[in-house]
Amino acid sequence: MPLEKLAAAFFLQMAIILTACRVAGLVGRRLGQPQVVCEMIAGVCLGPSLLGWLAPGLQAQLFPPDSLRVLYVGAQLGVGLYMFLVGAEFRVDLFRGRLRGAASVSIAGMLAPFLLGALLTPWLMKIPGLFSPRATQWEATLFLGAAIAITAFPMLARIIHERGLSGTPLGTLALAAGAIDDAAAWCVLAVVLASFGKGAHLAYQAIGGGVAYALFLLLVGRRLLVPLGQAVERAGRLTQTHLAILLTLFALGAWAMDAVGIHAVFGGFLLGASLPRGLLTRELQRLVEPFAVVFLLPMFFTFSGLRTRLDTVDSLQMFLVALVVLAASVLGKGVACWAAARLNGEDSATSLAVGTLMNARGLMELIILNIGLQNGFIESGLFSVMVVMAIVTTLMASPVFEWVYGRRARLEGRLGSAGSTD
Amino acid sequence: MPLEKLAAAFFLQMAIILTACRVAGLVGRRLGQPQVVCEMIAGVCLGPSLLGWLAPGLQAQLFPPDSLRVLYVGAQLGVGLYMFLVGAEFRVDLFRGRLRGAASVSIAGMLAPFLLGALLTPWLMKIPGLFSPRATQWEATLFLGAAIAITAFPMLARIIHERGLSGTPLGTLALAAGAIDDAAAWCVLAVVLASFGKGAHLAYQAIGGGVAYALFLLLVGRRLLVPLGQAVERAGRLTQTHLAILLTLFALGAWAMDAVGIHAVFGGFLLGASLPRGLLTRELQRLVEPFAVVFLLPMFFTFSGLRTRLDTVDSLQMFLVALVVLAASVLGKGVACWAAARLNGEDSATSLAVGTLMNARGLMELIILNIGLQNGFIESGLFSVMVVMAIVTTLMASPVFEWVYGRRARLEGRLGSAGSTD
Repeated sequence: MPLEKLAAAFFLQMAIILTACRVAGLVGRRLGQPQVVCEMIAGVCLGPSLLGWLAPGLQAQLFPPDSLRVLYVGAQLGVGLYMFLVGAEFRVDLFRGRLRGAASVSIAGMLAPFLLGALLTPWLMKIPGLFSPRATQWEATLFLGAAIAITAFPMLARIIHERGLSGTPLGTLALAAGAIDDAAAWCVLAVVLASFGKGAHLAYQAIGGGVAYALFLLLVGRRLLVPLGQAVERAGRLTQTHLAILLTLFALGAWAMDAVGIHAVFGGFLLGASLPRGLLTRELQRLVEPFAVVFLLPMFFTFSGLRTRLDTVDSLQMFLVALVVLAASVLGKGVACWAAARLNGEDSATSLAVGTLMNARGLMELIILNIGLQNGFIESGLFSVMVVMAIVTTLMASPVFEWVYGRRARLEGRLGSAGSTD
Repeated sequence: MPLEKLAAAFFLQMAIILTACRVAGLVGRRLGQPQVVCEMIAGVCLGPSLLGWLAPGLQAQLFPPDSLRVLYVGAQLGVGLYMFLVGAEFRVDLFRGRLRGAASVSIAGMLAPFLLGALLTPWLMKIPGLFSPRATQWEATLFLGAAIAITAFPMLARIIHERGLSGTPLGTLALAAGAIDDAAAWCVLAVVLASFGKGAHLAYQAIGGGVAYALFLLLVGRRLLVPLGQAVERAGRLTQTHLAILLTLFALGAWAMDAVGIHAVFGGFLLGASLPRGLLTRELQRLVEPFAVVFLLPMFFTFSGLRTRLDTVDSLQMFLVALVVLAASVLGKGVACWAAARLNGEDSATSLAVGTLMNARGLMELIILNIGLQNGFIESGLFSVMVVMAIVTTLMASPVFEWVYGRRARLEGRLGSAGSTD
C-alpha cells in the first residue's frame, strides 16, 4: 500500500472508530453505562464479530492488513499513555486510612481468583484453542488468576470521585483495595510474561529488567524527578519543555519494558507512579488525557475488537467455558470482596457496593488479555470468552451499584448524582 | 518485523526524536531562535545528512524501513492537526484594519515569487534531479512560485502576539499580508497537485473535490457548526464528546482531501477556518495543541529530515542552484514585501521588519516540499536545496528582525521582550 493511501486509510478508520465509540457512548449513557464499556463494545462491533460478519467486504476494505500495523502502534501508544496517567493518579496515601479493611478485601480479591484459577486450569488446558500448548499449568493458573483479580482501577477512582464518595468508608475501602489488587495482578502478569515460552536467559532478562526498572525508579528516579516537579511549580504551569521531558521519559520507559520482554504499559505505569505529586501531575493529566482518551484509546478498543472472535464460542463446550469463566470471575472477585468486607464489619449495603465495584474490570482486563494473546500465551477462544467476561462484569457494575447502594444513599443525601463520566 | 518489535522501535524512535528536538531547541533559544527552526534542523540531523553519514549502521537500526510507515502516518496526523489548529486561529477580521497596505504587501509577496518562478524554471528544469520529467513548465512555475511565496504564518502570528505587536501597524500589516499570501499559495499548490501527472478525469476529481469541500464548508458547514460552538459556550468547556466530534470531523476532512488527491492538510485547515470562534476554538487549542506540537509534529520534522539528502548538493552546479534558489526566495519575498510596504508609506524600520517576517518560511515550507516530493512532482535534489532555503530564511528572521526593528522599538518601549516561544 503506497504511503499516501496508508494515511488516507488511517484518517477514514479514525473517523469511523471515533463515530462508533461516541454513538455507543450516547446509547450507553442513557442506560446509565460509563463511556469505557461502550467503547469496549464498539470495538467488538467493528471487528469480525459484527461488522465482519454482516459485511466482510466492507470490513476488509476499512481495515486493510497494512493499516493494522499503524493501528497497533497507535493502540500501544494509547494504552501506554493511559497507564502513565493512571500511574500519575495512583495514590499510596489511600492505604493508610483504613488499612485493615483494605487489606482484608484486597487479600480476598487476590486469593479467591488464584484459587479458582488453580481449580479451573486443569480443565481449561485440556480444551483446544484456549491456552497455548506451551503454557505450563503453573503459568496458566497465574495468568487466569491475575485476569480474574484485575479491577478497573481508573474507572473505580473516577466513579468514586464523581459521586463524591472520596472521603467515605466505601470510597476509601474500594480505592485502596482496588489499587493493591491491581498492582499485585500486574506483578503476577509480569512474572508470567517474563517466564513464558522463553529460555532461562530471556526469562532472567525480563525479570531482571523489570525489577531493575522498578527499583531504579523507586530508589533513584523519584528523587531525580523532584526538581522537575519544583520547576513546574515555579513556572506555575507545565511548559512545552516540561511536557517534552515527561513524554521522552515515558517513551524511554515504554521502550525499555518492551525491549526486555515485559510490556510498554509497565514502563508507563511505573514512571507515572514515580512522578512528584502536585501541579506537575495535575497539568499532565489536563494536557495529555483529552487527546489520549478521546483519540488514541479508541484505537486500542478497535484493535482489541478486531481480535475478538465471538464465533469461536460456537460449541456447547465453548459456551460452557464462557459461562464458567464468567461465574468464576464474579465469584472470585465480586462475591469474595463482598464477603471480606462483611466479615470485616462493614454494613450490608457498603459491602455489596464494594463487591460490585471491585468486580468491574473494564479496560484493564482488555490490556491484560491483549498482552496474553500478543505473546501467544492464550489463544483466540479464551481471549474472546474473557473479552465477553470483561464487558459483562463492567456492564453489571453501574446498575447493580445503583440498586444495592445508590438509591438508598441518595435518599439519605450521602451520594452525588449519577452523572455521566464526561 | 513482528508487531511487538514495531512498537518497541516506535517508542525508542520517539525518545530519540523528542530528545533531539529539545536539545536543538535549548541550543537555539540561547541564540535567539524559535523552537520550530531548531526542530527542522534536528530532523535533518537525524536523517542521512548527518546521523546517516556519521553512523549509517546506527541510523538504519533506529529507523528500520518498516517503522517508517508508522512514522509517516504519525507525521501526517501531526501536520494535519497542526493545520487544523492554524485554521482555527485564522482571523479574517484582520484584513479590515489596513486593507490597502496589506493588499500591496501581499500582492508583491505573490507576484514577485511567481515572476521569479517563471524566470528560473526554464533553467532549473534542464538540470536532472530537481523537477519530475513529467512536470510541465507551467506546473513547475506555479509550484516554485508557491514555495517561494509561502510564509510561516503560524510562527508570524506567534511572534507578533508574543512581542505585543498585535495592535501595531507592523503586526496588523504582517499578519494580514501573511494570511492572504499563505491562503493564495495553498490554493495554487492545490491546483498543481490536482493537475500534475493525472489524467483529465483525476484532475477534475481533485479540483472538483477540493472546490466542493471548500464551498460546502463555507456555505453549509459553517452554519452547521454554530450549534456546536453554542453547546461549548453553554457547557462552559469543551467536553470529551465535543472534542470527539471535532476530531471525527477533522479525520473525515483529512481523509476526503487525501482521497480526492489533494492533501490531508487542506482538509484540516479549511475545517479549522470554518469553526465558530470563541470558547470552542480556544479550548480546542488548549487541549490539542500541547500533544500535537510536542509529540506529533517532531515526527513530521524527522520524516522530512529522513528525506533530506544534503549530499545531493555535491557539484558546483547544485551549489549554484542552492544559492540561486536562496537568493530568489529572499528577493521574491523579503525584498519584495519590504519594497511594497515602503512604497505604501510605511517607515523604514516597519518596512524592513515586515519584509523580514514575511521572508521566514518555517514549517509551512516543509509541508509544501514534502507534498511535492511525495507526489513525485519534485525530486530529492530540489527538495534538499529548498529545505536548506527554508531553514536559512527562518534562521535569518529572528536576528534580522531584532537588528532592524527590535532594539530600537524596545528602547522606545514599544515592544515586549524577545521571550521564547515556549
